[in-house]
Amino acid sequence: MTQRLRLKKNADRRLKAGHLWLYSNEIDIAVTPLKGFEAGAQALVEEANGRAIGVAYVNPNSLICARVVSRDPSLRLDRSLLVHRFKQALGLRQRLFDKPFYRLIHGEGDLLPGLVIDRFGDVLVVQLNTLGMDRLRDEIVDALEKVLKPRVIVLRNDSSGRRLEQLEQGVEVVKGEFDGEIELEENGVRFRASAVDGQKTGWFYDHRVNRAWLNGLVQGQRVLDVFSYVGGWGVQAAAHGASQVVCVDSSARALEAVAGNAELNGVAERVSTLESDAFEALASLKAAGEQFDIVVLDPPAFIRKRKDIPNGERAYGRLNREAMRLLGRDGLLVSASCSMHLAPERLVDVVRGAARHQDRHAQILFDGRQGPDHPVHPAIPETAYLKALGVRVFRD
Amino acid sequence: MTQRLRLKKNADRRLKAGHLWLYSNEIDIAVTPLKGFEAGAQALVEEANGRAIGVAYVNPNSLICARVVSRDPSLRLDRSLLVHRFKQALGLRQRLFDKPFYRLIHGEGDLLPGLVIDRFGDVLVVQLNTLGMDRLRDEIVDALEKVLKPRVIVLRNDSSGRRLEQLEQGVEVVKGEFDGEIELEENGVRFRASAVDGQKTGWFYDHRVNRAWLNGLVQGQRVLDVFSYVGGWGVQAAAHGASQVVCVDSSARALEAVAGNAELNGVAERVSTLESDAFEALASLKAAGEQFDIVVLDPPAFIRKRKDIPNGERAYGRLNREAMRLLGRDGLLVSASCSMHLAPERLVDVVRGAARHQDRHAQILFDGRQGPDHPVHPAIPETAYLKALGVRVFRD
Repeated sequence: MTQRLRLKKNADRRLKAGHLWLYSNEIDIAVTPLKGFEAGAQALVEEANGRAIGVAYVNPNSLICARVVSRDPSLRLDRSLLVHRFKQALGLRQRLFDKPFYRLIHGEGDLLPGLVIDRFGDVLVVQLNTLGMDRLRDEIVDALEKVLKPRVIVLRNDSSGRRLEQLEQGVEVVKGEFDGEIELEENGVRFRASAVDGQKTGWFYDHRVNRAWLNGLVQGQRVLDVFSYVGGWGVQAAAHGASQVVCVDSSARALEAVAGNAELNGVAERVSTLESDAFEALASLKAAGEQFDIVVLDPPAFIRKRKDIPNGERAYGRLNREAMRLLGRDGLLVSASCSMHLAPERLVDVVRGAARHQDRHAQILFDGRQGPDHPVHPAIPETAYLKALGVRVFRD
Repeated sequence: MTQRLRLKKNADRRLKAGHLWLYSNEIDIAVTPLKGFEAGAQALVEEANGRAIGVAYVNPNSLICARVVSRDPSLRLDRSLLVHRFKQALGLRQRLFDKPFYRLIHGEGDLLPGLVIDRFGDVLVVQLNTLGMDRLRDEIVDALEKVLKPRVIVLRNDSSGRRLEQLEQGVEVVKGEFDGEIELEENGVRFRASAVDGQKTGWFYDHRVNRAWLNGLVQGQRVLDVFSYVGGWGVQAAAHGASQVVCVDSSARALEAVAGNAELNGVAERVSTLESDAFEALASLKAAGEQFDIVVLDPPAFIRKRKDIPNGERAYGRLNREAMRLLGRDGLLVSASCSMHLAPERLVDVVRGAARHQDRHAQILFDGRQGPDHPVHPAIPETAYLKALGVRVFRD
């Protein structure tokens, strides 16, 4: 590895604080022109004075032009280092969970920028979200083979992150025979979903701890699960004793999976589905005089870019207001957001505003984040994206 | 109730957003002079245009000169409203917990500014932290009698909050025979502590969920519990399978309680104690070549006032650095802070800096807050004070 990436003076501060990203305007392009790099190549990162401080892969065409893969200048991200990192990540998950259902690799949080791997038993669903990771595809598959010997490896390469990196979109089974269906267990409840047509890798492990919290409070309750996808919240609630659950989603296919998952857990008679836009569903349920003890809001990211914050916050506000209308005098709202750009205290404010709007009191009982298989890198705020508030909403 | 408290123009915004506090500079003292109020008296709160928007109790000598007790101008905080609020709070706790060990009233979070009540079975430990609440002492005791018929009611009136309100300090048993010892169960582990000489009400229920998280990871681990008090973390860890636990505290009496609590749970042979200043203990353990799989840091608030933030952050930084030195290649640090003035992201930064300082990697696995019997009022950031990070600290 002869290529070098020279930082401008004082541009090394973020890296020294532990961050892994380099922006193109931080590179001393007089010394090391970005256009000299092959896309995805690894390079030594140097301080302005020429001292090597790490190794990064480079995408000359991206705003984040390089991501650090090691702080040891003598290493590079190859099959051997991938095996080491995978083992390190696996060790953590095996300590955390007694069954093989978890996010195995959470990108920067596991020191592997741009790589996401979810494990569903002997099926691994991989997202190569950056050009640098895309170029390492064969090494990644090899290293997974060595560490885990999975039956199936699927590349779910249709993420929005890939578009930013100008990578092609597609889904590809690179190992094994695979009909697309994954099976998993979360908080003692079984699920099936599609790793091929489903959202993201097919399942969202990130809410595991938040769902576990809710599961403890659902006995005998009537629950509305809005943006249910395949029933992560709703079917778990039914399996943990909810008297009745309504799952709302705009996707007929997701709701078929909800029904299948309810069946799988023997709670089909307590789970119904409603195919609808979420806002329309909330309005029509209200018009029909429906009332729930618990409403779960787990919407897709309403804020994808910083400039969407004002509109996004308004959308969260409207959603939370409409949801609260369906609660009785003393109800529980679970209000989640996976928008990295919505700060936790802003979601608190959304809930506050919605409750005030209806002259109700709100008590935040639970302030949950992503589960431990989605480790947060303390220098990279972007790795912490998930929020789930458990809020008692009541009239005095 | 004839007295009125008139707000200046636009000074009603915080209240309308749901907040419960009024500052003395927000009062239109030309219309309603603060010195006209008897200390602790309740008054109608009026907007600048004279419209009544709530009821508050007044302390003319405090910076927070009034705290809202109801948004309904026709009510006042009397025995009847206290009974209603206590029932509302009790209903929540009974839904959350199957045993009578919890914070029953969390001040503003339960719409009762200045009042804290911890329940230890049939013993209630009460803190009257403001003048307004102090004046309602008899009504509070009566209302508790009606709702809970406790065997013992103790007023633990020696909080720092009372000093700010210029109230006398003292501890008083107002109902029952009481030797000062409380008993409780948390996460399946039994504890005894003193409600008379112990810290705060005798026990800290606020870390219940954070301890529960750690309990799931301690099997076979060697644990150091720094600032152990009576062993909330350490004895629970031992009871959940830790192979060895060392509890450090500067109070001999607290460590006697640790030993008693270890005994009570049949884990005395796995729990030892070290009477020492925390920083000195960390240094001497390091000097002795000791190593731990898990270190828990649950210090008292290092930041009590806004002006203490820089010094306090340095102290948290030093503490976290010294603690990390005692971890092996792949250890777990639980880093807590109960300083309301330390923002959650600042504690993340403390951990980040400490890990970088030793050239270790850190993964934040858990980002915990106070338990649900300490509800956060969404308009009052001060009601959210507790943080506990679960951090994997490792060398690559």
